[in-house]
Order: sequence, then structure tokens, then C-alpha cells
Amino acid sequence: MDDLPVRDELRGKSPYGAPQLDVPVRLNTNENPYPLPEPLVERIAERVREAARDLNRYPDRDAVELRTELARYLTRTGGHEVTRAHVWAANGSNEVIQQLLQTFGGPGRTAIGFEPSYSMHGLIARGTGTGWISGPRHDDFTIDVDAATKAIAEHRPDVVFITTPNNPTGNAVPAEAVLALYEAAQAAKPSLVVIDEAYVEFSHGDSLLPLIEGRPNLVVSRTMSKAFGAAGLRLGYLAADPAVVDAVQLVRLPYHLSAVTQATALAALEHTDTLLKYVEQLKAERDRIVTELRAMGYEVTDSDANFVQFGRFADAHEVWRQILDRGVLVRDNGVPGWLRVSTGTPDENDAFLDAVRTLKKEQSA
Amino acid sequence: MDDLPVRDELRGKSPYGAPQLDVPVRLNTNENPYPLPEPLVERIAERVREAARDLNRYPDRDAVELRTELARYLTRTGGHEVTRAHVWAANGSNEVIQQLLQTFGGPGRTAIGFEPSYSMHGLIARGTGTGWISGPRHDDFTIDVDAATKAIAEHRPDVVFITTPNNPTGNAVPAEAVLALYEAAQAAKPSLVVIDEAYVEFSHGDSLLPLIEGRPNLVVSRTMSKAFGAAGLRLGYLAADPAVVDAVQLVRLPYHLSAVTQATALAALEHTDTLLKYVEQLKAERDRIVTELRAMGYEVTDSDANFVQFGRFADAHEVWRQILDRGVLVRDNGVPGWLRVSTGTPDENDAFLDAVRTLKKEQSA
Repeated sequence: MDDLPVRDELRGKSPYGAPQLDVPVRLNTNENPYPLPEPLVERIAERVREAARDLNRYPDRDAVELRTELARYLTRTGGHEVTRAHVWAANGSNEVIQQLLQTFGGPGRTAIGFEPSYSMHGLIARGTGTGWISGPRHDDFTIDVDAATKAIAEHRPDVVFITTPNNPTGNAVPAEAVLALYEAAQAAKPSLVVIDEAYVEFSHGDSLLPLIEGRPNLVVSRTMSKAFGAAGLRLGYLAADPAVVDAVQLVRLPYHLSAVTQATALAALEHTDTLLKYVEQLKAERDRIVTELRAMGYEVTDSDANFVQFGRFADAHEVWRQILDRGVLVRDNGVPGWLRVSTGTPDENDAFLDAVRTLKKEQSA
Repeated sequence: MDDLPVRDELRGKSPYGAPQLDVPVRLNTNENPYPLPEPLVERIAERVREAARDLNRYPDRDAVELRTELARYLTRTGGHEVTRAHVWAANGSNEVIQQLLQTFGGPGRTAIGFEPSYSMHGLIARGTGTGWISGPRHDDFTIDVDAATKAIAEHRPDVVFITTPNNPTGNAVPAEAVLALYEAAQAAKPSLVVIDEAYVEFSHGDSLLPLIEGRPNLVVSRTMSKAFGAAGLRLGYLAADPAVVDAVQLVRLPYHLSAVTQATALAALEHTDTLLKYVEQLKAERDRIVTELRAMGYEVTDSDANFVQFGRFADAHEVWRQILDRGVLVRDNGVPGWLRVSTGTPDENDAFLDAVRTLKKEQSA
């Protein structure tokens, strides 16, 4: 590859992605451990069969039915009424973020995120030629609002990312902090603020969706990968002022969202109530993991997501390996001293907890 | 939207996309007019049902099975043996092209195409911050190789697009011309040459796939939208030296290709023989349209695609409207004096030919 005329800033880089290992218990990519219920599987087959009969035609370029149903879901669960004009969908929230950066970031512009956070924000910034600024957090992984507003005033970024609940740390960002950052960003220059709520359905608190009212530069990004148990579907979406939806049309690839993706997502949305029951089970299990880890003496970051960050370790990667030796794959996100475990089924969580319990005992012995 | 902090070069632009009108005969977007055969529809439902049972997990990030089957198809039909290491797939050839431009183009770099051609090349260049150079063609829409090599020597582009068969004109580019442009591009500086073969299955001649042998900077781009009758699926792919496939991994969004897309594409590939029979019917119909239009006195560009460019008109848009008034939607691609009609079913083609025959008579009367 070194002989190819690739862009200089890509030379020597590695593709993003968690190691894919064949391990009995995989708790490393924040997937929902519950397969879709069989009636939903059948409904997907049915809707895709219907879509396949028209597959020689391009899909609905504007995904009108899907955006209508996503708006209905957001209205029902997000505490704020939105219509399809407020909603846009793409192949995973990664593509949503890419479209936003192509529209509001790009060459000569910059974006800021508060790290550690979802590392794709910075990687997609790089992929779209947007400069990347790593903003500060406190030692407990909450956003240092004073330092963050100062960083925004100093760098005047065009796009601000706020991930809440944050990945990989798990903690939510209070609405007041988000508002302070939004105000700081608008004061520096009119800039887009993206609230990445990929994990919000697992939160103890509410969605920040109502904040889009009267704030034309605020975007809430969502995904069906986690709460809807559909990581394989690649369906991300956003809610914002309709003008933002109009603006991303200028960079979206035409017909970006396939007819089978739209059909599958629509089927899943028909089964929202069932899927949200799994979310409740996962929240209870997530809380159990936090409690048990703390009881063992681990440090645990407060979690509003479907995963838990725990530590601290002198050598987190070595501990990651030791847990793997016990048949459980967790994630080393590169946060020094910390590891992240996704919430699995009760059995999977037990396997994880057993593994780290024996580790703790060996360390104490 | 004017109040939003969008990039300056997007201001005042309109989204790409053909007008979507409810008309009896739609011959405007080069879709395959034949719905997928019912056994394939059932097979898609079956494979998607299977994929849906695992939808809570991320899809195969590297699409190994799909790339293996695409390589098998290319080997069988393209006159050159390739493996999955030579093949990469994405959501439509638009996303393939976007990934190539993010890797080999981008800010501070330029791409050239020979226009009129597939307008998304220039639009995706803009979307990725790549400078765009419009290269020359002869009046008959063949590439002016002398002028083109001079333009390459002068501008030293990082990416060269050659669409063959060309869209919207329909004519194929001879292998010698492609080789001359490749050599010119390498002499100017090492640069990527992308042969867009979206319509090659409809060609009288052969694929240029064998040219990738020994040419590490040559890429052939393909799609399942046309020959496979699956525009709704959004499945594009490329064949090139494995190092090119490695390189695009650096910019591809992780898990960009959904499990349902992979399952549907695999089902369609199982039915290749049936689908290629439709291609033969469409080629015969395409040739009939060319012959009949010429017999009516229209000028027609030689076509190796599933569409035909015809003219000339003092006011092509007015003629487009007159054809639409007769219930047939063709495409005004903005090529002065010319319109484009997709090959439909025999009945659809008859409807189109009747419409333009009456127009011709009225003009003569």
C-alpha cells in the first residue's frame, strides 16, 4: 500500500475496528445480546419480500415512510413532538455524522469533541478533511464545562460533538452542561452542535431531544443499533430543525438508503414495545454489573449506557488479556487504566463477573 | 437553510436527483424494467430471514462471503481471474467512488472526468473536498485522447475517471484510449485511474477488467443496480490490486454494509444466469431503439449501455416535456440538444417510440 498515491495523512494508519475474536462471551462492541424476537424476524422477511418485488427500481430517495415512523417513535419516547421534516436517516449514525461533517465541517473547518469519547467522531472528521480538536474532561470523565467553553471560545470550532451517554465512559452529560456548550459555541461563531444519543434509551434520565426547539444549530443523533437490537441493520438517524435536514441533502449520496434497509427498519419499528422491554432488562443488568463490580472493589464510572467502564489498572491491556483468557472478550478502548464491558445476557454477565472476581482474588492473594 | 453555518460552496446548490414523477412509462433513471423473478424474491426473503436472526450483532465488517461471490462473478464474466482480495463492496458505486476520493483525492487534490459523463463523479469530488477538472470530448462524445492526455499533463490530477460505457451518452471507450490515459496519468504523477463500468454488461464489447493486471493504480468500478436489476439494493463494488482494497479500509465507515444488504446481494448472485438473460433481452431492445430512432431521422449516439442518447433538438427540455405529455418520462441530463431514454420492456419502448414518432411527424408537418 505504501506505493499507492494515498493521501499523506492516511499513510501508516490502521483501519478502525474492534478485534473480532472467536470467544464464548463477547462483550466488546456494545451490541444488544438479545436476538430479535421470531415474530419480528418473520415480519422482516415479509416486508423485505415485498420490497424485493420492486428491487429493480431505485429506493425512495427521501425515505418518507421510514422518517415518518422514526419521527413517531421520537415523539412517543423523546418528550418532544417532531415530524418527518425534522428527521433524516442514513446507513448507521456514522454516515449521519459523515453527512453532517461534509455539510458543516470539511476542509478549512474544525470540529471539537471531549475525549475520551466515541472515537469515530475524530476519525470521520479526518475522513472529511475537517480539523479535529480534542477537548477536555475531568478525571472522573465528566465534561469540564469551564475548560470546554474556554476551548470553544479559543478554537471557534464549526462543529461540536457531545456524546451522552458518553462512550466509552458511560456517563450522561446534564442538560445544563449541553446548553452551556451550545451557548458558548453560538457565541464563538454560528456552529453546529451534535448531541450523539446512540445509547440514550439505556439512560436513567431523559433524551435531550426537546432542546432542538428554538435551536436551529442543534442536532440529536440516534441509532437503531443498540436499543432496537439491530446493529446488523446499520440504521442511524437525526432529529433537528428541518433546515438541517434540507442542508444534508446537498451532500447525501442519492438513494443512499437501500429498499431492504428501509423495509427492515420499518418492520423493527412496528415491534418497538417488545424491543424496549429488552432495554429495561438490560438496564437492570447494567445496574447489577455496576453494583457487583463496586462490591468487588473496582472503580466504576456511573453508567447511563448499555456498557460499564471499570478500573483502575496499572496495565489495562494486560487485564484485558487475562479476562480474555477466561473466555470473555471486553474492550480496551485505550483509556489508560480502564476497560469497558458491554451488558450481555444474565449468563454472559455472570461469566464476566466471575472472571473479574477471580482476577481480584488472585491480585489480593 | 441560508441561516445555517453550511460550507460556502454548498450555498445555493440543489440536491442531485432526477425528478420523480408519477408517469405510466418511466424511462429516466436507467433502471432495469424487469422485476426480479419470483424464485429470487423468495430466496432473498429466506436469506434475509436468516440474517435477521443475527441482526443484533454487527455485520461482517469485511463482507468476506459477498466479496468472494462478487470475485467469482467477475472471474466468470470479466475475462480475468480475481479473488476477494481484489474486490471491495459498498452501498452503491457512489459510496465506492466516495471512498476512493476520500483515500486518493480530498482537500488539496484534484480529479478529472471527461464530460458529459456521470455527474456524480464531480458532485462526490465536491463532497469530499476534491478539486474537479472537466476534461474534453469530441463533438460525437468520444474522448478526445490527444486533448485529454494534454489536460492530464497540464493539471496532473490525482484521480482520473473514465466511464465506459459512458453515461449519459452511451458510447464505450476503447481499451487503447483507456491505456493511453492511464499512461498519461502515471507519467504526470502516480495517480488513480477509475474505470466506471456500471453499464458494462450491456456492452457489445468486453469488460476492461483484465487491465488491472500489473497496473496497481487502476480500478474498475461496478454495480448491481443495472445488470442485476437491483437498483433498490444499493450495491456497488470495485476490482483492483489488493493494495487499493487495503487502502480504502482507512476511510470506509466501519460496518458500512448492512447484514440485510449482504444477504440480499448474495441471493441475487445465486441467480446470475437468469438475470443475465434479461440483460440479453435488454441489449436487443436497446439495439431496436437505436435502429428505429435512426430510421425516424433522429441522431443517435452509439450505445453500449441500457439507454440511448438521441437528438438533436434546438430545445431539448421542450422536447422532454412534449414526450412527458405523451406519458413517457425520459431524462434531460443537461447535454444541450440531446435527451436520454432508458431501455424498458418492449411495450414501454413501443410507447416511447410511438411518442417520438408522432413528435417527428408534427415537426415535419
